[in-house]
Amino acid sequence: MKAVVNPSRRVEFDLLRGSGRGPRLGRLRIRGLEIPTPAFMPVGTRASVKTLGSEDLEALGARLILANTYHLYLRPGAELIARLGGLHRFMAWNGGILTDSGGFQAFSLARLRSIREEGIEFRSHLDGSRHLLTPEGVLDIQARLDSDIRMVLDVCTPQPADRARTAEELALTLRWAARSREAWDRALSAAPDEEAAGIRDEEGLRAGGRRAGGDGDRAPAALFGIVQGGTFPDLRRESAERLVDLGFDGYALGGFSVGERAEERVPGMEAALAALPAGRPRYLMGVGTPLEILDAVARGVDLFDCVLPTRNARKGTLFTWRGKLIVKNRACADDGGPIDPRCDCPACRRYSRAYLRHLFQVGEQLAGRLATIHSLAFYQQWMAGIREAIAADRFADFAREARARMETGGA
Amino acid sequence: MKAVVNPSRRVEFDLLRGSGRGPRLGRLRIRGLEIPTPAFMPVGTRASVKTLGSEDLEALGARLILANTYHLYLRPGAELIARLGGLHRFMAWNGGILTDSGGFQAFSLARLRSIREEGIEFRSHLDGSRHLLTPEGVLDIQARLDSDIRMVLDVCTPQPADRARTAEELALTLRWAARSREAWDRALSAAPDEEAAGIRDEEGLRAGGRRAGGDGDRAPAALFGIVQGGTFPDLRRESAERLVDLGFDGYALGGFSVGERAEERVPGMEAALAALPAGRPRYLMGVGTPLEILDAVARGVDLFDCVLPTRNARKGTLFTWRGKLIVKNRACADDGGPIDPRCDCPACRRYSRAYLRHLFQVGEQLAGRLATIHSLAFYQQWMAGIREAIAADRFADFAREARARMETGGA
Repeated sequence: MKAVVNPSRRVEFDLLRGSGRGPRLGRLRIRGLEIPTPAFMPVGTRASVKTLGSEDLEALGARLILANTYHLYLRPGAELIARLGGLHRFMAWNGGILTDSGGFQAFSLARLRSIREEGIEFRSHLDGSRHLLTPEGVLDIQARLDSDIRMVLDVCTPQPADRARTAEELALTLRWAARSREAWDRALSAAPDEEAAGIRDEEGLRAGGRRAGGDGDRAPAALFGIVQGGTFPDLRRESAERLVDLGFDGYALGGFSVGERAEERVPGMEAALAALPAGRPRYLMGVGTPLEILDAVARGVDLFDCVLPTRNARKGTLFTWRGKLIVKNRACADDGGPIDPRCDCPACRRYSRAYLRHLFQVGEQLAGRLATIHSLAFYQQWMAGIREAIAADRFADFAREARARMETGGA
Repeated sequence: MKAVVNPSRRVEFDLLRGSGRGPRLGRLRIRGLEIPTPAFMPVGTRASVKTLGSEDLEALGARLILANTYHLYLRPGAELIARLGGLHRFMAWNGGILTDSGGFQAFSLARLRSIREEGIEFRSHLDGSRHLLTPEGVLDIQARLDSDIRMVLDVCTPQPADRARTAEELALTLRWAARSREAWDRALSAAPDEEAAGIRDEEGLRAGGRRAGGDGDRAPAALFGIVQGGTFPDLRRESAERLVDLGFDGYALGGFSVGERAEERVPGMEAALAALPAGRPRYLMGVGTPLEILDAVARGVDLFDCVLPTRNARKGTLFTWRGKLIVKNRACADDGGPIDPRCDCPACRRYSRAYLRHLFQVGEQLAGRLATIHSLAFYQQWMAGIREAIAADRFADFAREARARMETGGA
């Protein structure tokens, strides 16, 4: 076991098995939380993992969730959440929270957005109001949200994109990364144990809405850089190297699953991973299916997030150990068995496929909730299976067996 | 304490305090379930109390819920539910279930419906298919659903209605009640411990879809008659007397909250209650607000159901000990306090008004769920408060204090 501590001690990452290449077993420690990796983060876009409460996430064993800065910045606003004690207290969630920078949504959801040196300007998709997201500003917003892991602002180049555009946007992303690192250092040195580092003083917040004074119990938050570079391995490698020079608590791989073909993804991902230090966590943003996660774990990725399990669940498509189950199908109408016989989640323990299908057919909200509970439970089991396999030095066997089961399954 | 057992022993009702008039404390025992009365039944129209699972109802302490025969008959169908082991198993609910006859919805929701001697003919509001609900047929459907308390088919006269129409529809309701009683007896004598009485044989049902053979653990279901007669006290009394002559396990007061003014309700209700036996449960259908329930308990009603707490909750209006709370109001935006400081439900223990308002503002499904949990918890607490007050012989004080708090409150 190699314990690697970065200079700012914002986040500790213990690599229990593996190295810079291939599957790794790790333990991320941040602000008193311990998160075994590889780990999957359910997506709680607007301070709720859709259909679930925080008590449900606890019951599912989730340790770390993702929340979207763009959405929370617009509604209810970062100021309000700060006044109410930060996002953890706001959504009554005791686990970890990673927030993105908001840039991706500003570009994909907002109207009349433009990217310039200063940052991303956009009009709200809700009311048309004008906003500017800068590298410094998004860190300030995330500090108000008081998330545990925060992301730098980047330009996520959509695919397909040629080399010129990719290189240009990468260069801007790297200039923004440098500004982010400087802003982070300024904030840390201005208030080494306090505000900028994201220490929460819940009493202070409640009393006067001011964000000062540490409670001593919570370590500072972490800042992750984001590798871009599209489908060009050399740009990906350059991006990773430059970020490592700047020094971040962890490194995300951005700009994947944005329109590129699966086989276009691998060379860029491998080039980036090869340039990242073994002792820092790697996070593949927005990916993916259980099998995509398996592929990325095989290459040395530690963290994942994706709306797929929750979004598909609400539409009636569930992940199981035997592949996808479309529970609205006629075949489920009188199937008294559970969603997934191998799953022991609250939905599988109690309810039948027939009942779940009925709920979908008549449009009951409980349908989406039960389906979400199962699919997130399945993702938790999937990640636990991956971790156990790495620990037992049989990841390749696990991957082969799980893939075969899912591909031939027919749940 | 007077233990009153009716001849068919379908349901036992122990009157622990009170008599035929005034507030009563009771215990309804049916099929191994014990339900303290006065009690409120959450409405699970389509085999789900909207937004909640059966585990949530258990956690709220609900013992008896209502399900709508009309909706379940159309989707997913009574046959399917029977094949899957009945409604309890279908929705994984171990508490009691009362089913209505379906007549009310057939008349209020369906298209091209007509009432004739044989029954109610209607076209489905879903697909236009033609159906006939007869007194005998609705008992058969409810037997397939295997509910614990079943209702006879009646004509619910909408208000305002003149005496001639009210009397005519009451006469038909009473002829249907007699047919229902005969059908019930025929079914009981044909299979005294089995099918018609609603004994479940879950293995038998699973194996072959046949509804025969008792498991010995479950007593027969109960059949309730329904008093009609609109706003005319003499018709209400006549209706109650004729039903008592026929003999039912319990008596419902139907045709209230259907357009009449509150003051028009009282004489008819009192006339009916005066004609009903003290030792049988009385059920006021579709009522109502906490204060309406208080008024009816004061007159000797034992059971209630209403969509109000659940429907209002989903729209953001919550019942509290200090009256209604419109949680979408701006005042809740930065209110870090709980929905109701006096409530210890899972929603109040964990979440703030500000968070709940945010969830409503952005349209998260969790909003309706948390609001429903609170409002049903409040109704449970309200009924428990009523029962404790009756037991302590201080119902009048409780009613006065609770009314004053709710009317002056401003939650």
